[in-house]
Amino acid sequence: MSIEAKVTLVGAGPGDPELISLKGIKAIQKADVILYDALVNEELLDYAKTDCIKIYVGKRAEQLSTSQDEINRLLVDYALNYGHVVRLKGGDPFVFGRGGEEIDHVAQYGIETAVIPGISSAIGLTGLQQIPLTYRGISESFWVITGSKSDGSLSNDLYLAAESKATVVVLMGYGKLDEIVAIYRDKNLHGLPIALIQNGSLPNEKIVLGTMENILDESTEKRLGVPAIIIIGEVVAKHRAFQQIKEKALAL
Amino acid sequence: MSIEAKVTLVGAGPGDPELISLKGIKAIQKADVILYDALVNEELLDYAKTDCIKIYVGKRAEQLSTSQDEINRLLVDYALNYGHVVRLKGGDPFVFGRGGEEIDHVAQYGIETAVIPGISSAIGLTGLQQIPLTYRGISESFWVITGSKSDGSLSNDLYLAAESKATVVVLMGYGKLDEIVAIYRDKNLHGLPIALIQNGSLPNEKIVLGTMENILDESTEKRLGVPAIIIIGEVVAKHRAFQQIKEKALAL
Repeated sequence: MSIEAKVTLVGAGPGDPELISLKGIKAIQKADVILYDALVNEELLDYAKTDCIKIYVGKRAEQLSTSQDEINRLLVDYALNYGHVVRLKGGDPFVFGRGGEEIDHVAQYGIETAVIPGISSAIGLTGLQQIPLTYRGISESFWVITGSKSDGSLSNDLYLAAESKATVVVLMGYGKLDEIVAIYRDKNLHGLPIALIQNGSLPNEKIVLGTMENILDESTEKRLGVPAIIIIGEVVAKHRAFQQIKEKALAL
Repeated sequence: MSIEAKVTLVGAGPGDPELISLKGIKAIQKADVILYDALVNEELLDYAKTDCIKIYVGKRAEQLSTSQDEINRLLVDYALNYGHVVRLKGGDPFVFGRGGEEIDHVAQYGIETAVIPGISSAIGLTGLQQIPLTYRGISESFWVITGSKSDGSLSNDLYLAAESKATVVVLMGYGKLDEIVAIYRDKNLHGLPIALIQNGSLPNEKIVLGTMENILDESTEKRLGVPAIIIIGEVVAKHRAFQQIKEKALAL
């Protein structure tokens, strides 16, 4: 039997298994092997063939994740030995997913690659909460930034973002919320609206709304945890529950 | 018969009808009325019930589009008289789609609203071309900006974006490509990679790769037209065909 080696990166979307694309579902159905991450909804694996090999490569709780080198190696090994490998990643494969590194590595071996985009949590979770990323007269752009650089520091892009009028979305940045808020407070933007969404699109979704002034207290009070995304900008005030939060803040 | 008025904004994705989410398809199947735009793939309307009312509200060629006020009015009228209205929009409803204004208008009438996000062309078309929006060591963020302000001017965000290290994606900006390129040339970024994608994800997709130095000539030579998106940043050099373009540019 001849093997047609191929690796397809597939974006699984932000959590709700119905937020994957039809094309993504079809790729899962045809996969010989699936390598999937922690943020992928495991219900999606039910679309796979019965003899599909499913391998979990994410990090969970205290457990160590499979290293990127190991994932790269697995992609090549499985593609050469089993055929079509679907690399199923949370959100979109190229939004902080190291998908580019995986494509580069696999391509070195002459293996065919393809990408099926997904709904990034930056856009999808904001939208589900009916916070518009852009709005005529309020925001002409949005800037999506990682809160988790490999060296542990905050991205310099965040300092420039605080000077822009863009709606800013920070992914994987909840652990550095205090540092991020400090950047905005230093610029005297205490009243700027900010939202935090944990477990977005899932039954246990939580949202916390506030301003740079009170968001740290609010998130502690509401016991927010990871994974959570951060949305910063005047468009956050468009959220239907924002008005009452604002009144509470003004009363402080 | 009692009518349950509801308006759901649904993102149809960037063009390929298989790039809509499963949730989006289910909403179309249940819709009593669908209002759809020019950039929506009409194959998606085949999912609708046979008695679903389908209304085209986009702009095409010289034909005038339905005004936003008129669309807002139609959303309310149809929801109150027919029930569940799906507002089907190209890409994601909140990425320069005026979805926020539609939600605000409809909510004034006490009509229930919902949003089903879509794959924005900013993320999806870039991904399909295997250009990673972010890449460790190259880009820690991406900034999505409209090229089409209501007053015809270029967004100020574009000037700040040219100073940032973000990957920059400009939607609806192809008509102002020369002005955008001028911003980067003024900053002496002649060698910065840039890509243009027309009709992305469709059979007639075209891509043009280049640098700030030669992209205007390249796009003329390749007879590129609208709708097209613009991607700017070092990550564009990750596109597999970029190396030969680069050599051509250096030989000039």
